[in-house]
Amino acid sequence: MSGKGITKRSENYSDWYNELVVRANLADYAPVRGCMVIKPHGYAIWEAIQRALDDMFKDTGHQNAYFPLLIPESFLQKEAQHVEGFAPQCAVVTHGGGKKLEEPLYIRPTSETVIWNMYAKWIQSWRDLPILINQWANVVRWEMRTRLFLRTMEFLWQEGHTAHATYDEAERESLTILEIYRKLCEDWLAVPVLVGLKSENEKFAGADHTYCIEAMTQDLRAIQAGTSHHLGQNFAKAFDVTFQDKEGKLDYVWATSWGVSTRLVGTLVMAHSDDQGLVLPPRVAPVQVVIIPIGRDEQREKTVGAAEKMALDLKQAGWDGGRARVHVDSREKESPGFKFNHWELHGACVRIELGPRDLEAGTCVVTRRDVGQKHTVSLEEVVGFVGHELTSMQSALFERALDLRRANTRRVDTWAEFEAIFEGEGGAGFVMAHWDGTTETELAISDKTKATIRCIPLTPLDPSDDEPGACVFSGQPSARRVAFAKAY
Amino acid sequence: MSGKGITKRSENYSDWYNELVVRANLADYAPVRGCMVIKPHGYAIWEAIQRALDDMFKDTGHQNAYFPLLIPESFLQKEAQHVEGFAPQCAVVTHGGGKKLEEPLYIRPTSETVIWNMYAKWIQSWRDLPILINQWANVVRWEMRTRLFLRTMEFLWQEGHTAHATYDEAERESLTILEIYRKLCEDWLAVPVLVGLKSENEKFAGADHTYCIEAMTQDLRAIQAGTSHHLGQNFAKAFDVTFQDKEGKLDYVWATSWGVSTRLVGTLVMAHSDDQGLVLPPRVAPVQVVIIPIGRDEQREKTVGAAEKMALDLKQAGWDGGRARVHVDSREKESPGFKFNHWELHGACVRIELGPRDLEAGTCVVTRRDVGQKHTVSLEEVVGFVGHELTSMQSALFERALDLRRANTRRVDTWAEFEAIFEGEGGAGFVMAHWDGTTETELAISDKTKATIRCIPLTPLDPSDDEPGACVFSGQPSARRVAFAKAY
Repeated sequence: MSGKGITKRSENYSDWYNELVVRANLADYAPVRGCMVIKPHGYAIWEAIQRALDDMFKDTGHQNAYFPLLIPESFLQKEAQHVEGFAPQCAVVTHGGGKKLEEPLYIRPTSETVIWNMYAKWIQSWRDLPILINQWANVVRWEMRTRLFLRTMEFLWQEGHTAHATYDEAERESLTILEIYRKLCEDWLAVPVLVGLKSENEKFAGADHTYCIEAMTQDLRAIQAGTSHHLGQNFAKAFDVTFQDKEGKLDYVWATSWGVSTRLVGTLVMAHSDDQGLVLPPRVAPVQVVIIPIGRDEQREKTVGAAEKMALDLKQAGWDGGRARVHVDSREKESPGFKFNHWELHGACVRIELGPRDLEAGTCVVTRRDVGQKHTVSLEEVVGFVGHELTSMQSALFERALDLRRANTRRVDTWAEFEAIFEGEGGAGFVMAHWDGTTETELAISDKTKATIRCIPLTPLDPSDDEPGACVFSGQPSARRVAFAKAY
Repeated sequence: MSGKGITKRSENYSDWYNELVVRANLADYAPVRGCMVIKPHGYAIWEAIQRALDDMFKDTGHQNAYFPLLIPESFLQKEAQHVEGFAPQCAVVTHGGGKKLEEPLYIRPTSETVIWNMYAKWIQSWRDLPILINQWANVVRWEMRTRLFLRTMEFLWQEGHTAHATYDEAERESLTILEIYRKLCEDWLAVPVLVGLKSENEKFAGADHTYCIEAMTQDLRAIQAGTSHHLGQNFAKAFDVTFQDKEGKLDYVWATSWGVSTRLVGTLVMAHSDDQGLVLPPRVAPVQVVIIPIGRDEQREKTVGAAEKMALDLKQAGWDGGRARVHVDSREKESPGFKFNHWELHGACVRIELGPRDLEAGTCVVTRRDVGQKHTVSLEEVVGFVGHELTSMQSALFERALDLRRANTRRVDTWAEFEAIFEGEGGAGFVMAHWDGTTETELAISDKTKATIRCIPLTPLDPSDDEPGACVFSGQPSARRVAFAKAY
């Protein structure tokens, strides 16, 4: 157990995660099994993610809209793969307004069907295309094995649904979004991701093909952080959505859909946090700087005053193109030690201590959450110093996570070695291995090792990954290595 | 019918509204009866409302969080008035994950019960108070008589839920929020509102008392635009939420809840729009300025280039402390007349025409949506001129709505006059009349006239409204006049 009463990662990574999420006030268990409450500290991270994504969506011509929560049962039946994938996971409304309904309604597990039903009404000609719509919404997928943020019955997400005149345009769209997701993860969350294509077996139910980004946790498992689907003409055919092209010819519309969810908050915690609590990249941290004035009575008044002035200076100076998120913890009844622990647990990126002797000397003590080393900094220089520390921390977290991934990505060519690596319960990093491209082999491998194909990378981690070879399981020819891992 | 094929307000106000909302692409009817799709143009208005409110909530110390969609049936039963008010309106989930549930789950019609179940877990001492939480969420209340934005089965809203140590603090909170709602309506939406207290009969199911804001539509009906409830200790008692005060004494926690919804978008349309289409106050308009370059071939190239430069200048100059929302309509196949109609319908606040001859003369033609008069303005001065027009339009819309309310607020002292005013189907403005304070009289009045008490104003519209008198129906003593109207 750590000082905060949280299990250490080395003792039980899973317990560490579950305890940390609750103790750091990110989320709590809801009364309905499988559901969670996102508390303000956790929701503030989600809001930072929303802002970053929403800006990028709008910069690339997307608009937000809102489609209904409830979907007629018959809609889900229209796309064969889709209903097979989603119907068993649905929550079903059978009564409303005190009466039994004629047709049951499904709470959306995802909104392709209700959206394509509307697109059928909205799309007639090439002039109506493209449609580039996103929605921020809640969805429900029945789930009893709860893990806060990572696996819950209800979760929040954004889901984009676009309609295009050609296959190529839809393909460009799905790759544009994939790149936005990569940027979000790497530049905001400081989480490096593998960018690639899902195998046929792992693709979205109803897609032509699915792109994804895959992160690595500190316990060396893969975690899917976002997906972008080229839906081909599958939903257009299911909902009979055709358009007249410039030559007057009718054709079915091409589609994409894509989403990331509150699962990203869990991914973030898994990637960076430590035994003392949350470690959050500054760009999405609810508290970037906490100032702790020290002293009692008259001295307290002076240090609190100085802390509030410093907070104002830091906010106005800003960081990363916006106002800095600065908090002064001037609670009277709590000791400095209590506050240090509190803000380590809650992941304030930079802590500033301001005591009476510091104030006399014209200095303060600055400590960065991820490295923990104390710096005595003059009051004149503190604004610049803190800005620099936040910038350094953002890139240091990314580099540290990238080092972890590098150290735990292996190239394996024999089945014996492959099996040995994935032996036992724990994660084993990414294994880049050759695969013959068949679902049969994929299922046999996951059956024997619990490792699954996370993706076929779009750009190889190492140039040699794109050279042909022999499948690690069947020995059949393989065009390139793919990424295997045990996944959350 | 107007030029856009929309029924005129004078012919049938209700048809005008329904047709306008669909034709101006604010919303569409969803496949499930009672539900709507909020289209990008309508959702952009909601986003502007969200930003304004969210900033004001955060400036007053509130934080966002997220509570679950699904509520156990037993929770709703815990507060007697609450279950009576809401249970008959609920959508009920009886099956999930392919199985029948042991206990049915209700889709939240509002979240007091699930939130107070959590607060019971989070609150022990005065140190845990106040809790000032808001959530942006969807709710479902069974409803078959759809009217887009105004009355739908599912709607989007924010719901605040706060917990306090004293009655007075909860009272201050509910009034702080009421003032935020007033500011939103008057300063952003340009809709004047009556601010007051609901009668016992009209208060929220489970509240001690309810404050509200009431707007007036162009067809002279009242429309409730927001409510703020002092919940007393009702939910704390129902969910057994006590706290230890500074002296160590246990007491039940005091509560408020408050909300506004996508109904505000409908209120906005009802308040300002005309037979030509949407008229939107600039602070929430998705398109504040539309620039329409005119000309063909080479001339087109020049005017499009100049329009894009002008758009950039306008955006960078900004308006109202942010970037201006400027759109260049350079569609090649559509005529200028088509575009003028299109943007009148969609409520662009200011239209700028830029033709080849304008360009030669160094001028453009600027027209404000609400007044329609054309101004020839030099290109050097256009940025300043447009900023000024937007500011004028924002206050002109408010003044016009205020004039309408003034002209349609009457003081009535006899039952004969009261009945005569509310005769017929239409709205009849606000009637300020004396009421004896009993639910019996209130129900008798609404039974005979369909007029209801909209609120007991907190500050009188006219000082004489606060003088005592005799109830317009019963003749019994009355402390002050209250506002009656037919309501949406």
